[in-house]
Amino acid sequence: MNGVVMKNMIPLFLALAGSISVQAKIMTQTIEYKQGDATLEGYLAYDDSISGARPGVLVVHQWLGLTDYEKHRAEQLASLGYVAFCADIYGKGIRPKDTSEAGALAGKFKSDRALLRTRVNAGLDVLKKNELVDPKRVAAICYCFGGTTVIELALSGAELNGVVSFHGGLDAPSPADAKNIKCKVLALAGADDPFQKPEDLAAFENEMRDAKVDWQITFYGGAVHAFTQPNPGFVNAGAKYNEKADRRSWQAMKDFFAEIFK
Amino acid sequence: MNGVVMKNMIPLFLALAGSISVQAKIMTQTIEYKQGDATLEGYLAYDDSISGARPGVLVVHQWLGLTDYEKHRAEQLASLGYVAFCADIYGKGIRPKDTSEAGALAGKFKSDRALLRTRVNAGLDVLKKNELVDPKRVAAICYCFGGTTVIELALSGAELNGVVSFHGGLDAPSPADAKNIKCKVLALAGADDPFQKPEDLAAFENEMRDAKVDWQITFYGGAVHAFTQPNPGFVNAGAKYNEKADRRSWQAMKDFFAEIFK
Repeated sequence: MNGVVMKNMIPLFLALAGSISVQAKIMTQTIEYKQGDATLEGYLAYDDSISGARPGVLVVHQWLGLTDYEKHRAEQLASLGYVAFCADIYGKGIRPKDTSEAGALAGKFKSDRALLRTRVNAGLDVLKKNELVDPKRVAAICYCFGGTTVIELALSGAELNGVVSFHGGLDAPSPADAKNIKCKVLALAGADDPFQKPEDLAAFENEMRDAKVDWQITFYGGAVHAFTQPNPGFVNAGAKYNEKADRRSWQAMKDFFAEIFK
Repeated sequence: MNGVVMKNMIPLFLALAGSISVQAKIMTQTIEYKQGDATLEGYLAYDDSISGARPGVLVVHQWLGLTDYEKHRAEQLASLGYVAFCADIYGKGIRPKDTSEAGALAGKFKSDRALLRTRVNAGLDVLKKNELVDPKRVAAICYCFGGTTVIELALSGAELNGVVSFHGGLDAPSPADAKNIKCKVLALAGADDPFQKPEDLAAFENEMRDAKVDWQITFYGGAVHAFTQPNPGFVNAGAKYNEKADRRSWQAMKDFFAEIFK
């Protein structure tokens, strides 16, 4: 059972058609949900000034767990007209306090892809069952952690239109599963990401290629890991914000959504 | 001296803002120009219903020379509001009649990059001097041949805002020249292009990386060579039209132009 814990309204003014302006009412809710015995706590955002079912976008968090960063992305997606839901992979209250804890938690799920798939599918279910969402028009995006989390969602055979990986760690521990993929795949990567092993990248590309998946990948020159994050919450020479790559990758996602939600 | 040899009008109706329609008047001209002793014959297209200087886009032809394909692309660019000029690299009247001649001509210019740079710069000059063009907002695009033709244009130190290579053969015979690059570089490639040697691709990427060029590359899964061409004019298992990659790469170009022509 899902419970609404908190509900907020963020007023936004959107300029449309040059002269008309309408008030977008971005509503947000903290939503508790279950996966097996685990209690998870996600975050929903949508524009209350829009009526009727619309496409839904699942947002998967990074290694630091569900933070304000993902919530802000969900609100941005809501202002684009989507219903966005931030999944919780780790569990309610399980929010790493430092990179050491984050590494251990991310590592746990990265080494148990079956659990990772189950957890991310639980989030997808919440999104698809939301009354504001058209369950036939759904996508998932993710940043960094599980990098492959949304790729794993696709590999699990989930019914959705597309997945977008932003600077996700791409690999292919179970290439045979690629035949399950029912959605389009877009990967957006830093051309100089030191955390992306070339052999893992090649394995991912071959996995997509061999299964004849509808896939694309863009590499942004000069961009390293975490290029979409102004404040990644940790200091690492291999992870740095890149305004251009952030803006370009967001535009690539919007183009992808325009295509898959037609 | 440039001479207008032919002038045509292609009426197009563009639907704008849902209810208003305006008539775009796409004008085309065949333009003769010189590079050294060589006479070249290019093709200009623009929307006559637009007033004032606007961004210009140079279109570089493929190994078969300047054909209706490039002219159609120029007209598409004109309908987007740009002044488009198809350069002629080979020379007036030098239009290969088959792939054997095309291969010989393309090979000649690919093995003489200095001449290739001079010829493509001659075309850029015609475009920039056109009274309809804002010379501070200029880009170049190319398909296949010379694949690196527009990359060579960038390497020559030409003053323009950006270059876009569609399924161009990427390589790096003169990586030291990358320091000359003054523009942004966008490469759009088939992930399964059998004509793109991996070692040449790696050299190109390193060339861009080492010179800290503002560069990006997108690979379209399932796309081979010539993915933008419904009728490439030759039969080759490694070259095939791909509607999705065509549409997506055109969108990527439009996004790139929106950024560089701001």
